[in-house]
Amino acid sequence: MSTAEPEYENLELKNAHLDRSKPYPLDGILVVDLTRVLSGPTCARMLADGGARVIHVERPPKGDDTRAMGPYLPDGSSEYFRLANVGKESIALDFTDADDFAFLKKLISQADVVVENFRPGVMAKLGIDPVDLVKEHPRLIVASISGFGQYGPMHQQAAYDTIIQALSGVMASTGFPDGPATRVGTSLSDIAAGIFGYCGIVTALVARERTGKGSTVDIAMLDSTFALLEHGLMDALGVHERPERIGNRHPFMYPFDTFECSDQPLAVCVGNNHLWQLFSEALGHPEWPTQEGFVENSDRATNWAQVKAAIESVTTTDVAETWRAKLEAAGVPVGIVLNVDDTRRLPQIIERGMVKVVDGQEVPGSPMKYSTWNSYGAQHDAPVYNANGDSIRAEFDS
Amino acid sequence: MSTAEPEYENLELKNAHLDRSKPYPLDGILVVDLTRVLSGPTCARMLADGGARVIHVERPPKGDDTRAMGPYLPDGSSEYFRLANVGKESIALDFTDADDFAFLKKLISQADVVVENFRPGVMAKLGIDPVDLVKEHPRLIVASISGFGQYGPMHQQAAYDTIIQALSGVMASTGFPDGPATRVGTSLSDIAAGIFGYCGIVTALVARERTGKGSTVDIAMLDSTFALLEHGLMDALGVHERPERIGNRHPFMYPFDTFECSDQPLAVCVGNNHLWQLFSEALGHPEWPTQEGFVENSDRATNWAQVKAAIESVTTTDVAETWRAKLEAAGVPVGIVLNVDDTRRLPQIIERGMVKVVDGQEVPGSPMKYSTWNSYGAQHDAPVYNANGDSIRAEFDS
Repeated sequence: MSTAEPEYENLELKNAHLDRSKPYPLDGILVVDLTRVLSGPTCARMLADGGARVIHVERPPKGDDTRAMGPYLPDGSSEYFRLANVGKESIALDFTDADDFAFLKKLISQADVVVENFRPGVMAKLGIDPVDLVKEHPRLIVASISGFGQYGPMHQQAAYDTIIQALSGVMASTGFPDGPATRVGTSLSDIAAGIFGYCGIVTALVARERTGKGSTVDIAMLDSTFALLEHGLMDALGVHERPERIGNRHPFMYPFDTFECSDQPLAVCVGNNHLWQLFSEALGHPEWPTQEGFVENSDRATNWAQVKAAIESVTTTDVAETWRAKLEAAGVPVGIVLNVDDTRRLPQIIERGMVKVVDGQEVPGSPMKYSTWNSYGAQHDAPVYNANGDSIRAEFDS
Repeated sequence: MSTAEPEYENLELKNAHLDRSKPYPLDGILVVDLTRVLSGPTCARMLADGGARVIHVERPPKGDDTRAMGPYLPDGSSEYFRLANVGKESIALDFTDADDFAFLKKLISQADVVVENFRPGVMAKLGIDPVDLVKEHPRLIVASISGFGQYGPMHQQAAYDTIIQALSGVMASTGFPDGPATRVGTSLSDIAAGIFGYCGIVTALVARERTGKGSTVDIAMLDSTFALLEHGLMDALGVHERPERIGNRHPFMYPFDTFECSDQPLAVCVGNNHLWQLFSEALGHPEWPTQEGFVENSDRATNWAQVKAAIESVTTTDVAETWRAKLEAAGVPVGIVLNVDDTRRLPQIIERGMVKVVDGQEVPGSPMKYSTWNSYGAQHDAPVYNANGDSIRAEFDS
């Protein structure tokens, strides 16, 4: 949003990151993706973005559940399926059919990685228990993603993102003291489990390259969401206090919060008295830093409701962009609370390749940017159901 | 929370995960950690949990900023610092001192990984530009974590978690339609950048083991938070609609939401008519599935406010645990909205080793669980400032 000339622009890195022709860091890695819906497919999509060959195995006759979930494009394709399956191949296999199951076992015998997100115990019942698979193929990595993990008193319970957000503590930590516990506005528990699944798989690949040994990887949505917490964990584990949600403000710095303007809210991070002075001057109130109760950060943190009211009496008189520009010019950390539809248009997001076009479809880019390796991520759209079934059968069935 | 006997309990995996004596997957990897505060230290702490040797380099005289941030234990140690630095060693180095800087360069020349989260350009000014370091040490991986990345029109702007949450779209996606955009109750943008930093480093390690080549890794908090979004991205990138926040409910399934009880709220995920029948019977209202406007999921999603009111007229008459037990017995996916202080006591969290004790301090466990490798994570408390300075100097200064 700034139009000022940057003092340091790393064009070498920028060009490297946007170069679609670079080799991929996971080139040569074969992934059998037995997952469906969101957590598992997200994990395997990250592997595809890294250049692994990912074969998404789908159950006949309809395939992955998200193919039947919107939003849909005019061609009938599901954006939900697309988001989690860009860059993969698709084969339909019926595990209850002896030939298909034998082919699955053949495929697994050639793979570096298997990813699955069945309910715990289902892989064993199917005859492809993760622990057994690693014993049979000592270099194989088999990652299981589930709600609660492969054991423990809750491991058989049904897990949906909303339930895991509830149990993990993130929901009780989000929102205002006088309002309800609030779900994070994305399926954070599914996505976090997918990302930690990627972390586990890639870590196990490092170890395999160094020792020759494969491993199972067991990832729980509950563990993964719990691991994202911060002040809640410091309070609960460290000082044994019960954390309470505090809205948008910082626990001990003020004004470090969001403020209403005449259109959109504005986030401001004033972490010391010098910034408080600059902030007060930019808002036309140079007297605030010497006003009783507003002088020291500890005063402002105690009297945050009064400080907030004073600030909003100014900010609500004009649009957020006016205040953003003034505060940025003054050197105060500031940002408008943007809708995703505006975020996607930020020149910063575009220059970083975080929105890209593959086969004519706009999809998110990868956040991991390398100088040596391809950072553009997958370059093909999510597959049509069973799009690669015949060619994969011909290739591996020999 | 269930006391029922699990039908499938994987004791082999559980015992493997809790075995502290197993070898670590990142054994033999040396990390020079030049980071401070939260995003960078979190990334390097994950490497320490994987068994890498992580040397946290701190600036004299006070070290990492979070050492001066609470909450504090009675011994004066910071829980904030502890959370992000468990399992590391500490050395104090003054980069403006010629001897210390020469020692830093020596340390880097021995390292597999360097992690830093200075503002873009600072490493170059210090004389340790990431791109140059990789040219000098072709097997080295240098990861930079920043608010906006190493280039682009915003890359020099100050980034705090609240500002990145605002700009990324996650804040506008979180909360209720009639309420304010809501900050996620953890420093999600810092933590996400730390985790994607780990993803990038470990991916680059896989590539290095296979090709011998190092790389820079450039991670932005903005990119990382944008990459966590889901329905917002499907709407904005796919069907080109402007997403709006919808509180705790699911965009197209109902009742898939939280419901007030007499004490805590309850999360319920009813995704089909069969579960709706079971749910209605468990709440003593078998007539709901045939009541006008409540019959099909599409009806309930349209009339969600009436459905919610009907449900809460029942659930608010008793505590959440009563309804949870009834619904679980009926086979309906359900979970209480827990405070982190209750989450940490869940038998499921404890059995998974997600709270552990190192050197007498309770800290979170690692969510990546391996059968072959150590899953317990780091086994030492966060270091006292410069705790290992003398021994590290003696070891590398030869």
